[in-house]
Amino acid sequence: MRRACPSLQSTGRSGSSRCSGTMAGPASTDLGRALCVITGASRGFGRAIARDMSRLVKPGSALVLTARSAEDLRSLQVELAESEAGRAGLLLRCVAADLSRQDGLESIVRAAKEAFCEDMDHVVLVNNAASLGDVSRLASSFSDLTEVDSYLSLNVGSALCLTAAVLQAFPRRAGRRRCVVNVTSLCALQPFSSWVLYCTGKAAREMTFRVLAEEEPDLRVLNYSPGPLDTAMQAQARSTTADPGVRESFLDMFAGGRLLSCEASCAKLMTVLLEDRYTSGAHVDVYEL
Amino acid sequence: MRRACPSLQSTGRSGSSRCSGTMAGPASTDLGRALCVITGASRGFGRAIARDMSRLVKPGSALVLTARSAEDLRSLQVELAESEAGRAGLLLRCVAADLSRQDGLESIVRAAKEAFCEDMDHVVLVNNAASLGDVSRLASSFSDLTEVDSYLSLNVGSALCLTAAVLQAFPRRAGRRRCVVNVTSLCALQPFSSWVLYCTGKAAREMTFRVLAEEEPDLRVLNYSPGPLDTAMQAQARSTTADPGVRESFLDMFAGGRLLSCEASCAKLMTVLLEDRYTSGAHVDVYEL
Repeated sequence: MRRACPSLQSTGRSGSSRCSGTMAGPASTDLGRALCVITGASRGFGRAIARDMSRLVKPGSALVLTARSAEDLRSLQVELAESEAGRAGLLLRCVAADLSRQDGLESIVRAAKEAFCEDMDHVVLVNNAASLGDVSRLASSFSDLTEVDSYLSLNVGSALCLTAAVLQAFPRRAGRRRCVVNVTSLCALQPFSSWVLYCTGKAAREMTFRVLAEEEPDLRVLNYSPGPLDTAMQAQARSTTADPGVRESFLDMFAGGRLLSCEASCAKLMTVLLEDRYTSGAHVDVYEL
Repeated sequence: MRRACPSLQSTGRSGSSRCSGTMAGPASTDLGRALCVITGASRGFGRAIARDMSRLVKPGSALVLTARSAEDLRSLQVELAESEAGRAGLLLRCVAADLSRQDGLESIVRAAKEAFCEDMDHVVLVNNAASLGDVSRLASSFSDLTEVDSYLSLNVGSALCLTAAVLQAFPRRAGRRRCVVNVTSLCALQPFSSWVLYCTGKAAREMTFRVLAEEEPDLRVLNYSPGPLDTAMQAQARSTTADPGVRESFLDMFAGGRLLSCEASCAKLMTVLLEDRYTSGAHVDVYEL
């Protein structure tokens, strides 16, 4: 079901001139008339992405915000509805969903279809949701298949399946840009002691999106590594990481004020998306920007 | 339950001089008095590993061979029992097990414990089992979480959980060498169009073992990439790969006789294990040898 498009404030740029991602033209100042689907949107980096995207989309856009907690999502919805974009009519759809369940994925895609409007020229999916896993134990303790499979489902399987479902719902079409962001990590590239689930999941996920970029030349795929963020996940890492050296390095970064704010890292992500010059599928680290 | 050790033909080398893996001494000519657990042992590369290891272990060793098909395992058992090593008393235990089930993993570990003898000085686990996944479709078609999760469980979760369970069953001990091999692939490093599950699984698994290597300095961890092998999996890849370019490259390799035999690649793996000079956790490709 597609929603009616009552407010055609502007026709919007078609965006086709920016599809190649290799042209060194001036950065766009907006994300177009966009449908943005953001997972893990209620807190931390996902919330920062929701805020920034709400400001960067053109009138007539929609945000589909998803997370496990309906309550956290409601507070985000209230905040964004009261913002300038919200008051100007930005459509906000919140979906409390468990990404590791098929019906959770389907409810998100259903909401995205309902929020979509035919004159939108940009579909953006941000795969941000992730869990840390139990970092208080070493790999040799992970002999419970249910625990490991459950982690992989939430952090790897769901990202592939949601992306596939969104791409199916919004296929390639003239004048439609499509972009998929995967929030990745240095852990996708480097092993960290006592972080076996997180490293495994991030490495898996990054490869998923590299394959996707190979397969879909019209699609823009960004593996964005936001750096060590000052979030609840980092606090969990600082307090529970089993490996003393790794834990110490997090404590040092925290004490030395070297953790990045979600806002600062997210601003860089938005610049990358607006400039649109990254190689599709590439790992782009906040520290390279 | 530990089995009795009726045939202490020799005390065996303690192997402790080879534990560092960094010494450039002469390569050993055997794997010691070893317990070798090999997954996916009934066919292809796993079968070649079982054959080679049966020849390279010292008297008083045991092989635990596991695969899904009891019938294929039986034919391997018959073959090895009739070999020189088999006639000399090599213990062969076959376990038909589904690696994506907890009870499957447990039955393998139980068999390994039963096959173990206290005077064994080397425990080797070869995580060889893997499935190709459906390569006839592109990533954007994988919206079924059950399909993706099932693939990840068999190809990623089971490798971590079996490894963890084996390491728990055979903890670090003076005079005991421990080695874990992960059969990896170029697909762990490079994305291939229409191979999203395989690439994702191999990338994930390689990272799992890199983390393990970080965490367990006494353990030898080898990510061995055997090259394009002339196996049933390759035949499946040649005939079903959706991407024409990737499929063509496999057809070319096959037609040009450039696929490697399991025996040739396995011989190189055995040399790496005997020399024992690789960096633990490193990706070692057959073409670098």
